[in-house]
Amino acid sequence: MLGSTHGTLTTDSRRARVIACGDQRPGPAVHDRVADLDVSGRPLHADVPDLNRFFRPESVAVIGASDAEGRPNTGITRQLLDWAGRVGARVHPVHPTRPAVFGLPCAASVAELPEQVDLAVLLVADPLPLIEELGEAKVRFAVAFASGFAETGRAGAEAQERLAEAVRRSGIRLLGPNTNLNAFERFRDDLTGPAIALITQSGHQGRPVFALQELGIRLSHWAPTGNEADLETADFLSWFAEQPEVGAIAAYVEGLKDGRAFLLAADRAARRKVPVVAVKVGRTETGARTAASHTGKLTGADDVVDAAMRQYGVIRVDALDELQDTAALLARARAPRADGVVICSISGGTGAHVADLAAGAGLRLPTLSPQKQAELHQWIPGYLSVANPVDNGGHPVGDRRGRKIIDALLADPAVGVLICPVTGPFPPLSDRLVKDLVEAAEETDKLVCVVWGSPAGTEPAYRDVLLGSSRVATFRTVGNCLTAVRAWLDHHRFVTDYRSPFDMAPRTPSPSFRKAEALMQPGRQLSEHAAKQLLRAYGIRVPREQLVTSAAAAVRAAGQVGYPVVMKASGAQIAHKTELGLVKIGLTSASQVRDAYRELTDIARYEGVGLDGVLVCQMVEQGVEMVAGITHDELFGPTVTVGLGGILVEVLHDTAVRVPPFGEDQAHAMLTELRGRALLDGVRGRPPADVDALVEVVLRVQRMALELGSHIAELDINPLMVLPRGQGAVALDALAVCR
Amino acid sequence: MLGSTHGTLTTDSRRARVIACGDQRPGPAVHDRVADLDVSGRPLHADVPDLNRFFRPESVAVIGASDAEGRPNTGITRQLLDWAGRVGARVHPVHPTRPAVFGLPCAASVAELPEQVDLAVLLVADPLPLIEELGEAKVRFAVAFASGFAETGRAGAEAQERLAEAVRRSGIRLLGPNTNLNAFERFRDDLTGPAIALITQSGHQGRPVFALQELGIRLSHWAPTGNEADLETADFLSWFAEQPEVGAIAAYVEGLKDGRAFLLAADRAARRKVPVVAVKVGRTETGARTAASHTGKLTGADDVVDAAMRQYGVIRVDALDELQDTAALLARARAPRADGVVICSISGGTGAHVADLAAGAGLRLPTLSPQKQAELHQWIPGYLSVANPVDNGGHPVGDRRGRKIIDALLADPAVGVLICPVTGPFPPLSDRLVKDLVEAAEETDKLVCVVWGSPAGTEPAYRDVLLGSSRVATFRTVGNCLTAVRAWLDHHRFVTDYRSPFDMAPRTPSPSFRKAEALMQPGRQLSEHAAKQLLRAYGIRVPREQLVTSAAAAVRAAGQVGYPVVMKASGAQIAHKTELGLVKIGLTSASQVRDAYRELTDIARYEGVGLDGVLVCQMVEQGVEMVAGITHDELFGPTVTVGLGGILVEVLHDTAVRVPPFGEDQAHAMLTELRGRALLDGVRGRPPADVDALVEVVLRVQRMALELGSHIAELDINPLMVLPRGQGAVALDALAVCR
Repeated sequence: MLGSTHGTLTTDSRRARVIACGDQRPGPAVHDRVADLDVSGRPLHADVPDLNRFFRPESVAVIGASDAEGRPNTGITRQLLDWAGRVGARVHPVHPTRPAVFGLPCAASVAELPEQVDLAVLLVADPLPLIEELGEAKVRFAVAFASGFAETGRAGAEAQERLAEAVRRSGIRLLGPNTNLNAFERFRDDLTGPAIALITQSGHQGRPVFALQELGIRLSHWAPTGNEADLETADFLSWFAEQPEVGAIAAYVEGLKDGRAFLLAADRAARRKVPVVAVKVGRTETGARTAASHTGKLTGADDVVDAAMRQYGVIRVDALDELQDTAALLARARAPRADGVVICSISGGTGAHVADLAAGAGLRLPTLSPQKQAELHQWIPGYLSVANPVDNGGHPVGDRRGRKIIDALLADPAVGVLICPVTGPFPPLSDRLVKDLVEAAEETDKLVCVVWGSPAGTEPAYRDVLLGSSRVATFRTVGNCLTAVRAWLDHHRFVTDYRSPFDMAPRTPSPSFRKAEALMQPGRQLSEHAAKQLLRAYGIRVPREQLVTSAAAAVRAAGQVGYPVVMKASGAQIAHKTELGLVKIGLTSASQVRDAYRELTDIARYEGVGLDGVLVCQMVEQGVEMVAGITHDELFGPTVTVGLGGILVEVLHDTAVRVPPFGEDQAHAMLTELRGRALLDGVRGRPPADVDALVEVVLRVQRMALELGSHIAELDINPLMVLPRGQGAVALDALAVCR
Repeated sequence: MLGSTHGTLTTDSRRARVIACGDQRPGPAVHDRVADLDVSGRPLHADVPDLNRFFRPESVAVIGASDAEGRPNTGITRQLLDWAGRVGARVHPVHPTRPAVFGLPCAASVAELPEQVDLAVLLVADPLPLIEELGEAKVRFAVAFASGFAETGRAGAEAQERLAEAVRRSGIRLLGPNTNLNAFERFRDDLTGPAIALITQSGHQGRPVFALQELGIRLSHWAPTGNEADLETADFLSWFAEQPEVGAIAAYVEGLKDGRAFLLAADRAARRKVPVVAVKVGRTETGARTAASHTGKLTGADDVVDAAMRQYGVIRVDALDELQDTAALLARARAPRADGVVICSISGGTGAHVADLAAGAGLRLPTLSPQKQAELHQWIPGYLSVANPVDNGGHPVGDRRGRKIIDALLADPAVGVLICPVTGPFPPLSDRLVKDLVEAAEETDKLVCVVWGSPAGTEPAYRDVLLGSSRVATFRTVGNCLTAVRAWLDHHRFVTDYRSPFDMAPRTPSPSFRKAEALMQPGRQLSEHAAKQLLRAYGIRVPREQLVTSAAAAVRAAGQVGYPVVMKASGAQIAHKTELGLVKIGLTSASQVRDAYRELTDIARYEGVGLDGVLVCQMVEQGVEMVAGITHDELFGPTVTVGLGGILVEVLHDTAVRVPPFGEDQAHAMLTELRGRALLDGVRGRPPADVDALVEVVLRVQRMALELGSHIAELDINPLMVLPRGQGAVALDALAVCR
């Protein structure tokens, strides 16, 4: 099957690949369809290459192989031979002049290889001239170690683009350039159970996760993606999510080659309930700049990246130790039975402290029932608190009481997780405690976590007993334990409720689209009136208003709109109307309207502002001022924002963003993210705002983003007045800039 | 000297002790004075007991000593004998019936001790009956291990109060009850350099810091304060800050016995530039509740505790691993030479990632000068970025280049800290890197930090080389390294600028006080008019206003105040005036004023609200709405808050709090803490607000808190309208509740 699939990959069209893959590998939860594109022309399903022969090739060519003393390629060749021996692959050295390398006969060129190989490792300074030849030899995968491409600046980026183009034409799939040997490391094969698959855009940054094997945690794959001229993070994400041995995917990401591809891959993992834990560099401007110069990828606007990851349940962590601990827990822990956390400690102080941190991390610590507390007091002195946290006063070691306490806690239906912090090991007590925990963990389907607080970590109870258990999750810090447990609970909640937004994404334009298209003025900012017509085309309510070009018409319009009215100068390219005095509010009579008309047109003349007229608008006062709009993101294209309006939004930047497509649940989640969310619920005796109408506006703005993304550079509804519940929401002003 | 000091401690007055201590130990930066109290009657200087003979006694009585097999006291007695042997103290067992314990002759009672002892260890279930006898025997210190006091509830708290009272009468100083042997642990005496002194309110929670000795970090003292019936955290804090071997104080705090004592101790440490690093439980309600039940102390309102700690430079961390790492760095690192941080890594990815996290942690990463970059490029290939982060492309091992790179970075005047993250150890490279770093650190006065990223931590380069150096600060996680470095830089900045607010605190009432006192109505809420008179007494501006009792008088008042006016019902106990319709704004004519008067009095009658009249006030519109006030905190007494007003303050709780006394610098810092601070700087073309006037109001409110703290339960100025720069700030409404 791989042969035929791979055959179709020789076309030069990415879309053709989607079709081919879709035909061949319909997964149970993934519904690939022929040329399935959304209304914006973007794919609705991940294009997943079959990477089996990359990681487990039957035959490997080493191009530029060496066994000469002191050559860098000699060490690499030796490591590849070792690895090929372990995975059972045949190796064919290729070198123009050497007859043999390490005793293996050399082919003089790719064309002279004795068989069609799965993988060619390119140990040459410039891989470009080899690509066509590799394609003709029907080589499936190549790895290019050479550096000097996009990470070095513009000339390098152009060289990389030429390489990528050659790869597209050739039909091979390429890892690199600027990558390394990490995919061909010596993985421990004595470890069992669900594994971590690792993706890194910097080899060195994967080292700590790889080293988890020293603690008994299994690693199945490592994809060091380098500059991603062809194969990218998303490809490995999608493929790893389908491998049965993979329990979680850990990723170190500096930038993304293609935002959409990443989302589709994350969607695939979410559908299959495979957790993805990622470090993404770029929280700060310093980090973003440095990362961009490292592998030449776009880091993206961090708030958008952050939102996109949350939309697909990708767990973002900051540091590599959090990546290690969170990925290890999510790979190995079963689904939670309950979300209640119980803290069991040998010290009241430790219990209080860890409970404080756990509650602060958003975990739920249920108070144990009076019956359960009475049960625990059979074995724990009555003066100690066992409500949760449980202070066992020192784990009993002389008899079975200690084990009974643990079992009683794990048997409580409110408890899904038991966390036992061992702040300082005291072998007579902690050795027995650890043994009891390990044994209890074998007999439960609940999660048992131990935090081993000793700074040395050389104690046998830690190294042999705790790390020897695959059922106990062992941490070195309380912080990492709580981060991981929270991520685990959140992830299961997320995947349980997950519905892929790609299944709901519109494929064809709505009737609104034609009307909207007619309003576009490429490269220009629309007048307020035109921008509001655009909103109206998408069913977003705007005030009653008329555009007039005389004072008399203004008075007539005011009569029809109804007093009091607002009057504003209207024209393309007008910004900062309020600051210029081009808005008059609360006009209650014909004479005020006439005066206002004169004044507005005078100011416009004086300021040199071109008008298409004056807007006479219904005045809407009572409501919560919000903003909503569309911004174009360099990685993900058009994004949708909603936030608090008025001075709030300018000073506090209290906004939430989402990458389309997203469902109504995410529109509600956006509002929950706002710090000032309570304003919508009614404060100081004000009525609650029409949140449903606001959500509806957000979804209609999303529809605009999807359908008009290639026409609109920016859309800004400000203010969007959300009226009391049941009364809707009205866009009082709008700014739209066409592309 | 100690003898005479101690002699004075037999009085039962805490204040007398202040005098005595002040007379005996005037430190260079601490100006103890006789009976130095502030205007609120609270002490201005810490009462520091001389704890030398507690930690280094010449003679120790063990009351309840045992050598009988299987008795818990036997193990404790043995440990005390070991410890006494190490510190060279004579031990006198006391037991009513045993002739000898472990071969030492027993006294039958305290009265029969062969000499006056420095320390009595009480291994009895109820220490209360012994206290008087200990006092008569002129015992200096006692330690009570017994539990069952405040940690068990009301009856226990009463027993503890009886114990405390007996201790006060006796003249001894007591540690405990509910404490343990931690003060008498086996400290490593082979470690040199500045040490950590440790204070814990739960013995087990100090274990990780104590275990730092396994990593070569010196510990000088451990005070496990238990329930603090007498000696409390503050006593040890003050005393440790004066010990020359103490480089930093680490504390695990669940609650505070006396907020003022803690602040005075922290002030003492700040004056002496001794860093204090503390975990304080109680971030969450869960943690506060659990901690309170653990040692029976008040955890306090967390935002107030947090502010109080910041006011005195106490570094608050969340978890014990942060406490370890931060205290270890602050104990040992010298003062910073510059605040610039350079990241030097063997991988571009690691550099980018750590730079991102460092910038996110608020560290400054200066771009290295072109000259410095050229210098580095002598040894680092030209295609690698050395701007900062510095990517050395793999530490050079074959020659001296690696060391030259490190030295060149440390020689840069912009650089105060070098951080080298070793993400994954690779011995051929990392062994040399670590050796070069350790050697370079010996020859510089700048800070060298290494993050050792391996999860195992068993490598010789880590255990022997890095931990063997007292000049390199070694961490296991990037997060803890950055937290510690940030704390170190912040602490030095803080102590450099530190001026003790206690030196500036008022000792005598201001002339305002008499006027204010006359307005007080104990137990009642003042009318708006009276509350404003109170503000006026303290020089806080209020609008021109008159209290009137007839419509005709209202019209006259409006004429004098000047139109437009605001009218409000005025009376004690009126709250929610706006919601009840008891405020009329923007009145522009006599007829409107007359109507408003009628309407307000009608509503008041209808709602059953007692009036003392109607206020006719000047209308103040242009400005930024803020709030300011006084709240009573259970730990610290009256506190001062300032925040954003209007709907902002209700929904976003954007307020800052401080514990008096504090200086103008802290009043400015309060404003900086506000998320919406930018509103004061002028947004959307508004003029900047009069921040100086706002700061002046905060300081005047502080003066009220200090002078009227025992008279006022709550003061709430809302709104406080801050006018454009140069125009001042006006309290438009105020609520004051008397105690």
